[in-house]
Amino acid sequence: MSNFGFLDLRLVQPYDVAWQEARSAVGAARVLADAQVHSSVKEAVADCSLVVGTASLGHREPLHAIKRLEPGARLLRRHLAAGAQAALLFGSEKYGLGNDDLSYCHWLMRIPTRPEHESMNLGQAVAVCLYELVRAGAAARAKPQVRVAATGEDLGRIEEVTLNLLRESGYLKEPVDGSMILKLRRLLRRLNFEAADAPIWLGMLRQISWRIANLKSGAPPTDD
Amino acid sequence: MSNFGFLDLRLVQPYDVAWQEARSAVGAARVLADAQVHSSVKEAVADCSLVVGTASLGHREPLHAIKRLEPGARLLRRHLAAGAQAALLFGSEKYGLGNDDLSYCHWLMRIPTRPEHESMNLGQAVAVCLYELVRAGAAARAKPQVRVAATGEDLGRIEEVTLNLLRESGYLKEPVDGSMILKLRRLLRRLNFEAADAPIWLGMLRQISWRIANLKSGAPPTDD
Repeated sequence: MSNFGFLDLRLVQPYDVAWQEARSAVGAARVLADAQVHSSVKEAVADCSLVVGTASLGHREPLHAIKRLEPGARLLRRHLAAGAQAALLFGSEKYGLGNDDLSYCHWLMRIPTRPEHESMNLGQAVAVCLYELVRAGAAARAKPQVRVAATGEDLGRIEEVTLNLLRESGYLKEPVDGSMILKLRRLLRRLNFEAADAPIWLGMLRQISWRIANLKSGAPPTDD
Repeated sequence: MSNFGFLDLRLVQPYDVAWQEARSAVGAARVLADAQVHSSVKEAVADCSLVVGTASLGHREPLHAIKRLEPGARLLRRHLAAGAQAALLFGSEKYGLGNDDLSYCHWLMRIPTRPEHESMNLGQAVAVCLYELVRAGAAARAKPQVRVAATGEDLGRIEEVTLNLLRESGYLKEPVDGSMILKLRRLLRRLNFEAADAPIWLGMLRQISWRIANLKSGAPPTDD
């Protein structure tokens, strides 16, 4: 990360022994000293309006759009050039990213390894992705993009109200299956909400929620 | 190396303990089993008509032409495409390449790390160089992923049900202003619905609509 100038490292529930060791090593890079530790992916990416997962998918069925590293990095650079925050999400060396982690991703990026040997070492995968991000450098300096994407926090609020509506309407049966929540999260990410539109959608969804609650409580309709 | 399809590893005087351990590890890649061991760089590159060194040069005076990774890799690819042998030479993690090693190189290649942190981890440097070597080829072979967007008909249906919901909930007051309909239509288009997702969203919205109609008609709630 430090080689290529990416200094904002965020760890989610790091293995404490290894993490304390790495952090306190002589000559540890500043990126380690300044790293944030979070208890969940949701919390770690809350201020990011684009979350890109990295995955060697093996035989798992891909539930996300998958872009090859080069065009994917181009999109990421454009997002960053517009002054927006983005996160590049890596799984652990051993298990990679789980379905819950992936549900926070807008899309996935794949390093073009050969099919006979797809899965990469974590440190090498990080190095290759970040190299691709800086490679084009000045040449790829994108024109600032007008579109500002909704943050993870915005999407979290929309998810909450939508989930509630789907429960109230009987679309989701109680107790709600965890996989349905992941499905909804992915559906919401595919929609590409814009930051300015998020409060409008939230307002609509809340009004519909309110109406259902109101009808259920037996209050007489006021406007029809 | 194996990730990117480079299977011809040659080691010069490897540290024997580490080398035997790596080679005999369970699940060691074929590239290790097939590796050649040489007693000198001269011997290792004897059949190569191009030898490219990789170096973070620090304060050493560069005695070679130094090319940035991207144009350097282009030259290397051209050499290989002509059916000629080339070697990419890396130094040890600790000492890098010495002057004697460098003397076998035709030119040097530099990964564009930032000046504040030039020196890279060996494994990561190898991964980045080999990725750059295969990148263009992979780009040529990859078929672009086609995202299938929802049709105007899909969006029309989503618009209709959403409009109805917003009216039923009191978000839109009757008679509905035409400009509000246009606003909603633009909002829906900004969301980038995918074709496969349209029926899922429609199903959710219809269920919520049905629930409101059901509550309004005074039917007793069936599922809560």
